[in-house]
Amino acid sequence: MELLRQKVLKEGIVLGQGVLKVDSFLNHQMDPFLMREVGREFTRRFSGEEITKVLTIESSGIAPGIMTALELEVPLIFARKQKSLTLTEDIYVEKVYSFTKKETNEITVSKKFIAPGERVLIVDDFLANGEAAFGLARIVEQAGGSVVGIGIVIEKAFQPGNRLLQEAGYRVESLVRIASLEDGRISFVEEEEGLLS
Amino acid sequence: MELLRQKVLKEGIVLGQGVLKVDSFLNHQMDPFLMREVGREFTRRFSGEEITKVLTIESSGIAPGIMTALELEVPLIFARKQKSLTLTEDIYVEKVYSFTKKETNEITVSKKFIAPGERVLIVDDFLANGEAAFGLARIVEQAGGSVVGIGIVIEKAFQPGNRLLQEAGYRVESLVRIASLEDGRISFVEEEEGLLS
Repeated sequence: MELLRQKVLKEGIVLGQGVLKVDSFLNHQMDPFLMREVGREFTRRFSGEEITKVLTIESSGIAPGIMTALELEVPLIFARKQKSLTLTEDIYVEKVYSFTKKETNEITVSKKFIAPGERVLIVDDFLANGEAAFGLARIVEQAGGSVVGIGIVIEKAFQPGNRLLQEAGYRVESLVRIASLEDGRISFVEEEEGLLS
Repeated sequence: MELLRQKVLKEGIVLGQGVLKVDSFLNHQMDPFLMREVGREFTRRFSGEEITKVLTIESSGIAPGIMTALELEVPLIFARKQKSLTLTEDIYVEKVYSFTKKETNEITVSKKFIAPGERVLIVDDFLANGEAAFGLARIVEQAGGSVVGIGIVIEKAFQPGNRLLQEAGYRVESLVRIASLEDGRISFVEEEEGLLS
């Protein structure tokens, strides 16, 4: 997605250790037109699939998620993230480890919002090791629903998330795929493959 | 806003102690069409105001916030909420007490996203005691910006937030105003005033 690629190049800030900061348009300040285009692009890529709900995780997944849900004309659910939890019978809970923050969170979704047979598109802002996406997928499957696919705004393709998700049988669509952040330079997978000048 | 009022009546669940649960369309599952209408209604109510940014707070403010920002054609910023924080020079921090959760959070916004002179519309999902709205307003003012107004999706008018904000000089626009949740029944301010049958 060229618009997104340009935005990443222009406004993305490479911090040490493989961290890309995009807080001017995705993680803190958000560009609503870009978010709408992201929603349209996911809808285009998953056209032909019957999708009944979009599932994302707070907080940065909500804006791309709601725009995708608007285009697909289905509800959005956002999973909540918390450090620890009093369990109740009404919620699905999965543990998700964040390599960036070096902590385990529990992510939760109310049982009443995913019915058996539901066909769910998972949307998230970043894909690195795939922990959050796997956690969301396990919640959908616990509920007796199926994961139609996983839509990612920015993939760090030098980390194993995409490969692991595909090996587990999930369809992954990433709008931009970053091959490397080495030496403070952002390069994309397509460039490395020689598809772009 | 009639659409929203109907949704609150149909799907809102009154819990004890003045708590209204609207997690089927606003706080956990979200209705994207309703969120778009909320964004359009805030834009209509604040038309004529020059607005340069929308500011909200994670997580439930993000969906109404991004739809408002889309209609207004300006960026959205969402403040982050955390229990405690390593201070840095790059962020504005305000303490916000949550009466519902009985805890104090620190809310933060990066300094680089609010410039002096910025004209900011604050949007949030709920207004009760006004703590979050005051915290967001103080951040805008610390930055040398001005608060054009405060747009609230659901106001609990039996709590003092609206009055306190207006006394402090802020314009508040609430899309629905709940007069009472007593005996498990949702009644609206307009009903009590005899404006509706």
